[in-house]
Amino acid sequence: MDLLKRRIRNEGKIVGTDRITVDSFLNHQLDIALLMAIGKEIKRRFEPLGINKILTIDASCIAIAAITATYFDLVPVVCAQKTQSDTSTEDVYVAELKTFSDKTVDTAHIAKQCLNAKDRVLILDDVLAHGKTAMGLCSLVEQAGGTVCGITAIIEKEFQGGSTKLKQAGYLVDSLAVITRIENGEVYFKD
Amino acid sequence: MDLLKRRIRNEGKIVGTDRITVDSFLNHQLDIALLMAIGKEIKRRFEPLGINKILTIDASCIAIAAITATYFDLVPVVCAQKTQSDTSTEDVYVAELKTFSDKTVDTAHIAKQCLNAKDRVLILDDVLAHGKTAMGLCSLVEQAGGTVCGITAIIEKEFQGGSTKLKQAGYLVDSLAVITRIENGEVYFKD
Repeated sequence: MDLLKRRIRNEGKIVGTDRITVDSFLNHQLDIALLMAIGKEIKRRFEPLGINKILTIDASCIAIAAITATYFDLVPVVCAQKTQSDTSTEDVYVAELKTFSDKTVDTAHIAKQCLNAKDRVLILDDVLAHGKTAMGLCSLVEQAGGTVCGITAIIEKEFQGGSTKLKQAGYLVDSLAVITRIENGEVYFKD
Repeated sequence: MDLLKRRIRNEGKIVGTDRITVDSFLNHQLDIALLMAIGKEIKRRFEPLGINKILTIDASCIAIAAITATYFDLVPVVCAQKTQSDTSTEDVYVAELKTFSDKTVDTAHIAKQCLNAKDRVLILDDVLAHGKTAMGLCSLVEQAGGTVCGITAIIEKEFQGGSTKLKQAGYLVDSLAVITRIENGEVYFKD
C-alpha cells in the first residue's frame, strides 16, 4: 500500500535498529482519511473470505479495526484485553502472549460470549514483529472453535520473523506495509 | 439518544450501586452500526461549533472518536495517553487526572505537536462520572492555547457530579445518555 509506505517513510521515527513509531498519524494522532484508505485496502484483500468478525487487541488498533469494519458490512469488532497475569475464569478464553516491546509474558483474554464456532475472523494488529500477539489472538479464536481467515498488520517487520512463523503454522498473513530491514536510519519495504 | 439508552437499559450490566458496564456493544465488543449512529448524533449536536480536532483518551473511546471523526470532515483524532506517573518532558503537555474506577491519581499527556492555539476541540469521553478525566483533557487543550468547544460523553452519570462541575467551570457539556440514578438494579435516564 504505497500511500502508507510513503507516510511511514516520511513521518515514521526510527528507534534503535529495529523499531519504528508512527505516532503522528496512526497512534497518538489518527489521520482519519488514512485510516479509511487502510480500511478499504484491507477489505479489498480479504473480501472473498466471508469474514464476520474482526479481532484486535486494546489501544492502538481499535480505531483502525472500527473504521475497517465499516467496509465489511459493519461486522462486529472484538477487542481482546491484555493483562499482566492469568485472569482465567469460566467466562473468558485466555492466551499467553509476549509483546516485542516489553519482553515480558502477558496474557490476553476475551469474553466467551464474544467468539463462537461460526466465527470467521480477521485478526488485525498494528505492528507484526515476532508474532506473539497475533499467535495469541489466533489461539483465542480457535479455543472458541472459530476460524482464523487471515491476519493483517498495518506494519509488518518481516525481518523479525513473526509472519514467517504464522505462515508456517498455516495462517494467511497479508500486511499493508512490509518492512524487510531498517538500516542507517532508512526503512526498506518489500516490493 | 433513545437507541443508545435502550441498548444500555437492555444490555448494560450494573455493578454495585453506581457503575454500569457496556462491554457487549461499546467496549469489549463494538457494535459498529451503533458507533456510526453515535458519530452522526455527536455531529448533529456539535456541528455549528467549528470543531477541527477530537480529543480522547486511550482504549475504550478511540474507536468511537475515529468513527465520529468521519462525520466531522475527517478532523484528526488525538489520543491522550494515561500514565501512572508524571512523564513531563519538554515535548509533552501533562495534566493530572483521577479516574472513577481506580481511585488513584493518574496523569495524562499529549505530544505538544498534536495540539495548538488554533485548535477548536471536541472532548469525547466514554463515561463521564466525577469529571476528572474530562477536566484533565480540558487542561491539555488550554495548555496549548486551544479552545475547548464542547465535551460529550457516551454515558454521563449525572448523579456523580462531573458534568455539573464542568458546566460551572464554563464548559459546554452535552452527553448522549444521561443517567440520573441507578437504583434496585434499574437505570434511570434524564428525559
